[in-house]
Amino acid sequence: MSIVVRNIARAEPWVIDALGSSGVATVHEAQGRKGLLAPYMRPIYRPAKIAGSAVTCEVAPGDNWMIHVAVEQCRAGDILVVAPTSPCEDGYFGDLLATSLKARGVRGLIIDAGVRDVAELTEMGFPVWSKAIFAQGTVKETLGNVNRPLVCAGALIYPGDVIVADDDGVCVVRRAEAASVADQAAKREAAETEKRAQLAAGVLGLDLYKMRERLAERGLKWVDEDPGT
Amino acid sequence: MSIVVRNIARAEPWVIDALGSSGVATVHEAQGRKGLLAPYMRPIYRPAKIAGSAVTCEVAPGDNWMIHVAVEQCRAGDILVVAPTSPCEDGYFGDLLATSLKARGVRGLIIDAGVRDVAELTEMGFPVWSKAIFAQGTVKETLGNVNRPLVCAGALIYPGDVIVADDDGVCVVRRAEAASVADQAAKREAAETEKRAQLAAGVLGLDLYKMRERLAERGLKWVDEDPGT
Amino acid sequence: MSIVVRNIARAEPWVIDALGSSGVATVHEAQGRKGLLAPYMRPIYRPAKIAGSAVTCEVAPGDNWMIHVAVEQCRAGDILVVAPTSPCEDGYFGDLLATSLKARGVRGLIIDAGVRDVAELTEMGFPVWSKAIFAQGTVKETLGNVNRPLVCAGALIYPGDVIVADDDGVCVVRRAEAASVADQAAKREAAETEKRAQLAAGVLGLDLYKMRERLAERGLKWVDEDPGT
Amino acid sequence: MSIVVRNIARAEPWVIDALGSSGVATVHEAQGRKGLLAPYMRPIYRPAKIAGSAVTCEVAPGDNWMIHVAVEQCRAGDILVVAPTSPCEDGYFGDLLATSLKARGVRGLIIDAGVRDVAELTEMGFPVWSKAIFAQGTVKETLGNVNRPLVCAGALIYPGDVIVADDDGVCVVRRAEAASVADQAAKREAAETEKRAQLAAGVLGLDLYKMRERLAERGLKWVDEDPGT
Amino acid sequence: MSIVVRNIARAEPWVIDALGSSGVATVHEAQGRKGLLAPYMRPIYRPAKIAGSAVTCEVAPGDNWMIHVAVEQCRAGDILVVAPTSPCEDGYFGDLLATSLKARGVRGLIIDAGVRDVAELTEMGFPVWSKAIFAQGTVKETLGNVNRPLVCAGALIYPGDVIVADDDGVCVVRRAEAASVADQAAKREAAETEKRAQLAAGVLGLDLYKMRERLAERGLKWVDEDPGT
Amino acid sequence: MSIVVRNIARAEPWVIDALGSSGVATVHEAQGRKGLLAPYMRPIYRPAKIAGSAVTCEVAPGDNWMIHVAVEQCRAGDILVVAPTSPCEDGYFGDLLATSLKARGVRGLIIDAGVRDVAELTEMGFPVWSKAIFAQGTVKETLGNVNRPLVCAGALIYPGDVIVADDDGVCVVRRAEAASVADQAAKREAAETEKRAQLAAGVLGLDLYKMRERLAERGLKWVDEDPGT
Repeated sequence: MSIVVRNIARAEPWVIDALGSSGVATVHEAQGRKGLLAPYMRPIYRPAKIAGSAVTCEVAPGDNWMIHVAVEQCRAGDILVVAPTSPCEDGYFGDLLATSLKARGVRGLIIDAGVRDVAELTEMGFPVWSKAIFAQGTVKETLGNVNRPLVCAGALIYPGDVIVADDDGVCVVRRAEAASVADQAAKREAAETEKRAQLAAGVLGLDLYKMRERLAERGLKWVDEDPGT
Repeated sequence: MSIVVRNIARAEPWVIDALGSSGVATVHEAQGRKGLLAPYMRPIYRPAKIAGSAVTCEVAPGDNWMIHVAVEQCRAGDILVVAPTSPCEDGYFGDLLATSLKARGVRGLIIDAGVRDVAELTEMGFPVWSKAIFAQGTVKETLGNVNRPLVCAGALIYPGDVIVADDDGVCVVRRAEAASVADQAAKREAAETEKRAQLAAGVLGLDLYKMRERLAERGLKWVDEDPGT
Repeated sequence: MSIVVRNIARAEPWVIDALGSSGVATVHEAQGRKGLLAPYMRPIYRPAKIAGSAVTCEVAPGDNWMIHVAVEQCRAGDILVVAPTSPCEDGYFGDLLATSLKARGVRGLIIDAGVRDVAELTEMGFPVWSKAIFAQGTVKETLGNVNRPLVCAGALIYPGDVIVADDDGVCVVRRAEAASVADQAAKREAAETEKRAQLAAGVLGLDLYKMRERLAERGLKWVDEDPGT
Repeated sequence: MSIVVRNIARAEPWVIDALGSSGVATVHEAQGRKGLLAPYMRPIYRPAKIAGSAVTCEVAPGDNWMIHVAVEQCRAGDILVVAPTSPCEDGYFGDLLATSLKARGVRGLIIDAGVRDVAELTEMGFPVWSKAIFAQGTVKETLGNVNRPLVCAGALIYPGDVIVADDDGVCVVRRAEAASVADQAAKREAAETEKRAQLAAGVLGLDLYKMRERLAERGLKWVDEDPGT
Repeated sequence: MSIVVRNIARAEPWVIDALGSSGVATVHEAQGRKGLLAPYMRPIYRPAKIAGSAVTCEVAPGDNWMIHVAVEQCRAGDILVVAPTSPCEDGYFGDLLATSLKARGVRGLIIDAGVRDVAELTEMGFPVWSKAIFAQGTVKETLGNVNRPLVCAGALIYPGDVIVADDDGVCVVRRAEAASVADQAAKREAAETEKRAQLAAGVLGLDLYKMRERLAERGLKWVDEDPGT
Repeated sequence: MSIVVRNIARAEPWVIDALGSSGVATVHEAQGRKGLLAPYMRPIYRPAKIAGSAVTCEVAPGDNWMIHVAVEQCRAGDILVVAPTSPCEDGYFGDLLATSLKARGVRGLIIDAGVRDVAELTEMGFPVWSKAIFAQGTVKETLGNVNRPLVCAGALIYPGDVIVADDDGVCVVRRAEAASVADQAAKREAAETEKRAQLAAGVLGLDLYKMRERLAERGLKWVDEDPGT
């Protein structure tokens, strides 16, 4: 039996926006190097950078019926997350669905499948991260769940989790951890700003991160010429 | 024995241009969800949107000799379609061949292999949809057919078929069906314009497409909270 | 035991710049169709076109420690070349390392693995050719060699070899052959300029390259209509 | 912080064995076409057919330390399920670890990465389903969780879930649903036995499944000759 | 509109059997190096070697309804050829369909998609060449054509063409050319038998095929020691 | 200019045989986790286990001419190593070439491309590790080097290096290091035999390798129940 869950908890808007401002790489590091979706998930245009609450949508291969159902569950600030129950690159999503989502204030789409009308989506400024760009049409025959946990591009996503997406890919942050991750990310960014200034001034990472001693301990040797094979 | 067919029938220019204006996704749908080339066929720059009559060219792996032969068979408004007899990603085509095709009024290249000089091609505004970007040079030793039916990126293409290509990929339309497909595509576009306006105004697809009843019949349930596993 | 070689010979600056100006496809042809890295090595932004002396850096899978070591060996005009000892798409490199390399005058990065912070790298104008874009963080535990020969994306690269990289991909030129390859490349470019003018004027490659006779000898036939199966 | 959970609930042995006897395709259908791991998960030898309780083990890319930790949590009848935090094909597992697991009565390994010593594993009769066969060695530096939920080859797996694996691939069944799925699977098998006999006797599926009417309703036409394009 | 063509012409049995006895590599060469399906088409067990008349079946992605329709069109000596209208690896075919085909004397299945129940198919001795092994179930909702030309794994196949399949892959021979290709293949085999004997006796291919002169003409040099870079 | 080097140094037979007996995984470890070819190099049948001296052969894409040249340079105990100058999966090698190599006492073939006649090769007992199985024929038009260093499946191989290949893949050992690697490999095997016995007796790796303390230091915690998210 397939169900649509109407009420999901969402993180606070300031937390979501803070995570979005930090971006994927920083957030991934800030939460202990976890949460990344597979690297085949690429934005249809660049630059693109968003964060929002996940509304999750399970679809059958070659069948986009449930996306229409999921649209109704989306609010302003949400990101729609779609994953097929079997690998598929068909074009589940195009400019009409994007028009509908945009009208509701949805910030973008994450889909472990194909998308089409990418020229129109680019013009509209509706960002999509997808596995493929493919015009193949889909049918409307099979049900799936909306707002239940799902695996998208190798990552487990709960409805209401915070999705961060930018040119580096897509990262998911558990709702309950979002505030503390945002905090860690901000600290990390501050530290990086300082380091960036030093590196720009010519200080070496070897010195900045005090790596020389540990490298030597491990046995690294510096030689003037290659000793050959 | 390899042959070059000189005379091929082409669709009427207004039909070709109408299909080009509709674009890949619409044309694919208008002809009953068929005709797409494989999704690995990507444009070397975006946006790009063309339509034209297919001049087909069979090549040996790593051998671009027949492309030189095919150029002579191309007219203004044509699109050159190249497919190797065995999978290959070598760089069969570059800016010199593009200069020659452009001088003849050819609108673009579809190649189930590699292309090079993509910076120059981008500057020239000569669009290419290819399987790969790769500089690997090719030889000139083996014959192949020109203007005979071939399979390109999984799709059967007859000489004179209409090729439509844009940011979503590539679609082929049989010459004999081109006029009626163009007609269907135009109708589809008109219908979509109307729908787009309603969706932009906040009408849900669930209501616009009257999906609620059929979803309920199939057994979809809306619940307030996730009942858990 | 891992070693870092401090002194490597580099090609003369004018040779490097000449090769960079010719670009990947021309240089590849000029040296007899060799030296290309695998076609999966793509630039993170386009257009991008550089040449420089290779500083080579071997890394363990998921471990970017040695990149920090390699930075110190880089000079103005160099290109850092990184290859893992086992296939890996993790994000070894981001904007902090790029800041450090840029401060030293390094022209770009070639990495047979993943890269992150691509929006920032694009903004900085620091070009990277990589196998993947992926934010996955790396550790600092395992040693590797710096400035020893390595295989990167299927090509053998010696420290001090000239790397040429542009929108078509990446090519390596042996240091000892660099001057003569630059010379051949310049000649090839001059010849191409002449040919380009003729092709633009409508001369066919079939005539320009005198191919008709050899095609006929091999048995190619021109027919008016397709004889069918 | 990484943790190892010592106590996990397991399904009853007879349920596990019933599911194993039904096999992957039947179990997948019996639970409503869900639970399959990605098709790239292939057995290292065939035939192989097992079922067991999942002990889950998260590993860092190129690092098999936690597998040694997970071994201690395995009991007779279990299946070890290993997934890296970032895609990796290194050889995490070989005959020594298999010897240890076999000594504990473990039935096999599911690993979304590489495996080595496959000749020895074949000889030992220790079945493995993996993403790759690769001898690349791994390090022991980074912690991960044992017996916490993880995503393996695109499927979410909880510790104690029932894993079914055979020549068709791998399927996971939630522990709480295992008994009822086993029941459904047995019914499905009984029904298939009956159908198989009829099909073997020459009855057509079109008649057995009463498809003719619905096909006709949908508009399928039978014609004597192909009407052509 | 989808149609099922009832009457297709088939090649003569002795021609089909002769082609099957020659095998894929010989037949491919004998007809001028054409007709191969993509190399990803692999047999589910080895050795396997068949030939038969193609009954073609177009299916929607994730939908095996039309296979049931196609079964009725198959006769003893046929091979069922299935291709989806969009790339798909789902498990369209299993032991029940194989039982039905076997009852009709069908020799095997070629499917540009997934197959399941491979242990049972192996035991039954019903050979399948497929793109994937995957248990994912399919639906029965969408029509397609039976016994119309289709593209399968990159090759155009007409109903009644001869399919040859063995451990090297799959090759298609046009019905009208089948007798002459069988003849060429037999000649090729005879010639190879003679060559094999000579090569086994230590005669070098360089001498047997008289390659030395042409190699020297092209400029190949034999040297005692590697002259270095 | 292409050259064929006649004289190459080879490792001593007992060293080669010792390495072959140790096998790929052990040799790879014994030489410090290096030397593996890419994991896509798979044996055409299993089990297979060989070692021998590399005779290297560079070929053009789709052109197997130089393999005929290389055969003459092979002696008893050698392994032929073939790599194309651009990626290619065509069937460069079949049973006739194998007959010729077998007559010379060659132990097997490593080819970063396709192979055909695999049923015959299996019957002959001539092992091949390849990137693909594909019947596509090749031409004889382009020269390449024999017995010069080349990159095969990502690994640099010098003529005379020792190649070790088994069910786990392929590994290369530098000739100069072969004796000491064989020695290390033998020591490793001896140590593993002892460990295997202990593990088979139920001793845990955690204890055998004394990992508990370091795991605890790093912060690993054992808990009875999963604390939840």
